[in-house]
Amino acid sequence: MTDTQTTDDLFADGIQPWAERVRDGSLSFVQSVQNCLQRVDDNQSLDAFECMDAQRALGTAAALDALLAQGTDLGPMMGLPMGVKDIMAVEGLPTTNGSNADTAELTGGEGRLVRRLRMAGLIPLGKTRTVEFALGATGVNTSRGTPWNPVDREVHRIPGGSSSGSAVATASGMVGMALGSDTGGSIRAPACLTGIVGYKSSVGIWPLDGIFSLSSTLDSAGPLCRTVDDAALMHTFMTGEPVADRADVSGLRLGIIDDLFMDDLDPQVAEDFERACQLLERYGATRVPLSFPEVHERTSLFSAIVPAELIKTLTPERFMAIRDGVDPVTEARASVGLETPAHVYVKAQHRRRALIEMANATFNDVDLWLSPTCPIVPMPLADLANPAIHERALLASRNTQPGNLLDMCGLTLPMHDTSAVGSLPTGLQMTMPLNHDARLLATGRAVERLLKSR
Amino acid sequence: MTDTQTTDDLFADGIQPWAERVRDGSLSFVQSVQNCLQRVDDNQSLDAFECMDAQRALGTAAALDALLAQGTDLGPMMGLPMGVKDIMAVEGLPTTNGSNADTAELTGGEGRLVRRLRMAGLIPLGKTRTVEFALGATGVNTSRGTPWNPVDREVHRIPGGSSSGSAVATASGMVGMALGSDTGGSIRAPACLTGIVGYKSSVGIWPLDGIFSLSSTLDSAGPLCRTVDDAALMHTFMTGEPVADRADVSGLRLGIIDDLFMDDLDPQVAEDFERACQLLERYGATRVPLSFPEVHERTSLFSAIVPAELIKTLTPERFMAIRDGVDPVTEARASVGLETPAHVYVKAQHRRRALIEMANATFNDVDLWLSPTCPIVPMPLADLANPAIHERALLASRNTQPGNLLDMCGLTLPMHDTSAVGSLPTGLQMTMPLNHDARLLATGRAVERLLKSR
Repeated sequence: MTDTQTTDDLFADGIQPWAERVRDGSLSFVQSVQNCLQRVDDNQSLDAFECMDAQRALGTAAALDALLAQGTDLGPMMGLPMGVKDIMAVEGLPTTNGSNADTAELTGGEGRLVRRLRMAGLIPLGKTRTVEFALGATGVNTSRGTPWNPVDREVHRIPGGSSSGSAVATASGMVGMALGSDTGGSIRAPACLTGIVGYKSSVGIWPLDGIFSLSSTLDSAGPLCRTVDDAALMHTFMTGEPVADRADVSGLRLGIIDDLFMDDLDPQVAEDFERACQLLERYGATRVPLSFPEVHERTSLFSAIVPAELIKTLTPERFMAIRDGVDPVTEARASVGLETPAHVYVKAQHRRRALIEMANATFNDVDLWLSPTCPIVPMPLADLANPAIHERALLASRNTQPGNLLDMCGLTLPMHDTSAVGSLPTGLQMTMPLNHDARLLATGRAVERLLKSR
Repeated sequence: MTDTQTTDDLFADGIQPWAERVRDGSLSFVQSVQNCLQRVDDNQSLDAFECMDAQRALGTAAALDALLAQGTDLGPMMGLPMGVKDIMAVEGLPTTNGSNADTAELTGGEGRLVRRLRMAGLIPLGKTRTVEFALGATGVNTSRGTPWNPVDREVHRIPGGSSSGSAVATASGMVGMALGSDTGGSIRAPACLTGIVGYKSSVGIWPLDGIFSLSSTLDSAGPLCRTVDDAALMHTFMTGEPVADRADVSGLRLGIIDDLFMDDLDPQVAEDFERACQLLERYGATRVPLSFPEVHERTSLFSAIVPAELIKTLTPERFMAIRDGVDPVTEARASVGLETPAHVYVKAQHRRRALIEMANATFNDVDLWLSPTCPIVPMPLADLANPAIHERALLASRNTQPGNLLDMCGLTLPMHDTSAVGSLPTGLQMTMPLNHDARLLATGRAVERLLKSR
């Protein structure tokens, strides 16, 4: 890679510090957009974007600068350059859903999420790359291209997916925040593997109209961003609910589930997680071992529910017509949905309801479930030609899928030592029950502060 | 039929008048149970019961008499002889689910509904016959027997189903009230065809544990009884919510949907319905024509949802093992659920959600949907050997299924002139949106009062 860096990363410390620079007059929205566009140009090989909307972004930024100068402040995200995952419609831009097949009308027109953010002054810089139909956690998309993970400028490593472009654009400072969706980990896995923050909201909080429907049961949306504060800002914007500033982690009961979550971790993941836990314990948190062997059912439940719901969206007729051109991994997973019997689907949904109750009951004893977000660090894309390594790459969503199936909200934040030479990103995953988002984010703030203080 | 009537029908005017006779000392619970048992004996050929619990009923009645004598009154349904549809578990009694195959463990132990009623002093007299697995509206069950509709003592007419035995037992005064379940009309159709009141509660209000699960989406429970007051009594008991005593029908906007509901009615049904509407109009109600052609989708939606959910309950393995012994109509309908693809099921569920919203929107203009409950009067069972007549008998649930699919609560009350010689029962169906049960029942009271005043 021969990319050059001619600009500063405006959002390295999050949205609020950037917004303050704009308010104190040292930076304009136009300059911010120009900076971001320059970073996109300087990093073409990262291939984060499906399409750009540069001219409109600059024009919008100029208008917002004028508006702010006139004393109208639309709030802390006014003028923020934003990436939009290309399964979400943005008025005036095409939608690919990561596919060469034309499925734009399945996504529909611009939905309430994008609309509301645009009304608050956020500026879509373009549409970010996604795994085809958002089904896949490695980030690989042989149909339209696999973004380059910016953590390694020498070797093309997988970015994680399916919100691959949103992760890469955010991690490399091309945008201040990017929208993602998460059905089995599609926000948390790429955020983890690119070393940023990802927040998956509780199903039902963020409107999903204007977003391609992979799974009408499990789909959720959320931001990929640089700090937990940024995620909290988005939560408060979407819900009006404030996120408290939790002082510390003292008394926090960390539910640690040995089943599945801790199996077969990359050594660096295991080390980083143990060190994070010890740090939390030093400041008054306690580890509480939990038994929840039912998480092993994630494979059968996910495959009984998601492919059938995807085929419902595509219709069997359309899927049969386009399948030869679909990314082979996506194609293989989706085709399961042609054959799933309804009684198997109904049984899976009933089992899921039962497991949700069981999972919620564990929160009598703990405040959150804590685990590594991905069991792996990002491996070189080329290595996935080796079937064993490809198999291992698919583990990217192993620890995130339970959160979707169990109707939880989830957060990942970086837990690796970013100053260590050659260190690859690892993520700390926190999950809480449905609609505990504000508490999750408040707790995440305290944990992030501690991890950054090392 | 050579049955004799040696006893009075204690519940002809409903539960409250009977309860008052007990309170004023002119009747005991034991006498009430003896009366009912005598009526069962006198009407063996009606074949309403799957099994009896006579000794325990008498013992319980004696204990309740003693309790009441000591000044402990468990409420207006204390000591009421009750029928329980044999897809509901009652402690100490077998459960057949209307089948010769042993599926009792699928129903499980006694659920909250029966338990709560027993705790309020209601006395299960026995389990009432049901269509096999509660799937079918004619009342025919070739596996375990088809009850005789008491409206015709000469000819064995279909009783309607699937709560066939509960309807027959209630209509013939063998019990004061009987429990039924309604997935596509299984309370309303037999109540209509036997000339009594049937109330199908909104899904979610009545607990369904301990009841065989035909459709986890559409199942609901409710009483078959003699008056709307009785149904209101049950609603208040189950929810604690009072049912107002609506003074009259003045100003009531009756939504009349021509599509489907009014097609191809038996002449007597059409006449009775027109006369009921005219009576309501004379007292200040107005007919509001509604267009809702989507009700025609009931067939495809019902068959995409219910058979698959039944197969989920039975499991495909068990169904394959027992299908040769299952009633042929039930077997044919259930076997659809072996083949339903999950994406078809998901699509049907989504479509159903959309139709529910559309249906609810019609209530901006009307207070209720009004229609004949069944388009037919009960035909002789023997005539069903004629395929055309069998086809017509299947229409018993045509007008009731929409209420289930559209997530409504529903009520049927007799609308025929009971004094006319040779008159067969017809029913007036009122439906309202989910959770408007108290308003439905209050309105039903006013309508019933008017119809009875003729």
